[in-house]
Amino acid sequence: MDFKGEIADKAAKITKKIELYLPKEEGFQKTIFSAMNYSVIVGGKRIRPMLMKAVYDMFEGTSEAIYPFMAAIEFIHTYSLVHDDLPAMDNDEYRRGQKTTHAKFGEAMGVLAGDALLNYAYEIALKAFEVDSSNKDAIIKALKVLTQKSGVYGMVGGQVVDVESEKTSNSVITREKLDFIYRLKTGALIEASMMIGAILANASDKDVDYIEKIASKVGLAFQIQDDILDVVSTFEELGKPIGSDEKNNKETYVTFEGIDKSKEDVQSITNEAIDLLHSFNKNDKFLEDLFVYLVYRNK
Amino acid sequence: MDFKGEIADKAAKITKKIELYLPKEEGFQKTIFSAMNYSVIVGGKRIRPMLMKAVYDMFEGTSEAIYPFMAAIEFIHTYSLVHDDLPAMDNDEYRRGQKTTHAKFGEAMGVLAGDALLNYAYEIALKAFEVDSSNKDAIIKALKVLTQKSGVYGMVGGQVVDVESEKTSNSVITREKLDFIYRLKTGALIEASMMIGAILANASDKDVDYIEKIASKVGLAFQIQDDILDVVSTFEELGKPIGSDEKNNKETYVTFEGIDKSKEDVQSITNEAIDLLHSFNKNDKFLEDLFVYLVYRNK
Repeated sequence: MDFKGEIADKAAKITKKIELYLPKEEGFQKTIFSAMNYSVIVGGKRIRPMLMKAVYDMFEGTSEAIYPFMAAIEFIHTYSLVHDDLPAMDNDEYRRGQKTTHAKFGEAMGVLAGDALLNYAYEIALKAFEVDSSNKDAIIKALKVLTQKSGVYGMVGGQVVDVESEKTSNSVITREKLDFIYRLKTGALIEASMMIGAILANASDKDVDYIEKIASKVGLAFQIQDDILDVVSTFEELGKPIGSDEKNNKETYVTFEGIDKSKEDVQSITNEAIDLLHSFNKNDKFLEDLFVYLVYRNK
Repeated sequence: MDFKGEIADKAAKITKKIELYLPKEEGFQKTIFSAMNYSVIVGGKRIRPMLMKAVYDMFEGTSEAIYPFMAAIEFIHTYSLVHDDLPAMDNDEYRRGQKTTHAKFGEAMGVLAGDALLNYAYEIALKAFEVDSSNKDAIIKALKVLTQKSGVYGMVGGQVVDVESEKTSNSVITREKLDFIYRLKTGALIEASMMIGAILANASDKDVDYIEKIASKVGLAFQIQDDILDVVSTFEELGKPIGSDEKNNKETYVTFEGIDKSKEDVQSITNEAIDLLHSFNKNDKFLEDLFVYLVYRNK
């Protein structure tokens, strides 16, 4: 099996694990359960839980407490997409080749499914205490990272500035602001994923800080690649409307640096992350391959 | 000072405590901080944190760990109002006599401010571990209650069924479904408030269950009173459009039972709650007065 096959295989296994945490579609509130499950199951590369697990494995973590957190980070990522697609935000009808949640279930359910997934993520993450009651301090630390990186000082903060920059016509976005958006909007959840993998494997605080630094580079490379794909992909490859950044008058890394420099930077930033990774002197082969894969992905 | 004055005084003190946890309005994401703070500060009777603290005091809790949870429950309540007011939901421009968050900051910020407040609630609640590191198990239990009662098996679940019942024309809502909505939409957060007060004061599991039962009655009485006020209040008294239930073709407890029976039920359910409360044989005077106040409130 080639690496792409290996990734697909891992993603499928992660999806199966995550599905165990999804709600049963029954009772009066059945619609919201369906909308939540649809949003999570419909696609996704499971990159965040995959990164989390890969770091966890590199630090030789063994407890099952990692699984609720893998589900939680995917739920948080999913909720952010569901709300991002809303008419009041990016107004996208398709994602990953499928109807977005609000396009399928209506706008009110789009709002509520996002709310439900965000809250549910924390309900599930707290199950880690039941799964492994011997490691409370690490779980508490992981919860702190998860909440901080997902909120106003993390992902949501990045989204806010992103939305504001789009909506304000004639706004001149500075490079500093763009970096801020990238670091928070995409970077923060990648950082949380990898940090939580390290924390739950009881890595030292110093190592967790180091992982945060590596993750920040991976997140940046990943986001630049996203901008590149928005310019060069076809609808079929990407499964969502291309050129949506241009449509929304959006300044991106590509509009600042040009397509060639952007491609170079994705590679050099990824290489920096890999060099840092090697300094742990651990079995990091899968993580390294995964970083490279994120660079060469075409959707 | 009469009891109304006492309540106002307590609410003001709670607001001051909560304000300590609000984000500073600075940095690139300043708008979201302003939107969050506006939503929280603009009004509110602080009933949930007040109930939490009252139960905590009745069980003679002493640690400062209660304060982050008081802030958290108010942030969760506030986020639910911010999203409830959105055009895709109830489409309300005013609440508590003030512009709603989306009316003031725009629809995208309305979505994001709600998301931000929900996530921030958990960031703040986790601070309880720093405030009181000697009571981890109680804090973990409190976090579980907070997440569960706020999510699809609690408040959000109730909102979903409520929204669905409104949007579906010709839908015949059953009394069973209405009870479900009330128990979850309003009841769940009141239950969480009071249960967390008991849990953090290290009340026994049996006592926490009992408090849940009492809170469920208080929540129901409170919601029925809300329906009554929607019919009988004036705009000035209520600070938001009256008759909005009728405008939205909404079946309520009042449409099922009539206004007189509804008023009677508010009183008898409140009395049941008070009788149960007395069975603890604790100093419950303030809680009892608070229950009664909730019944006779006129906004």
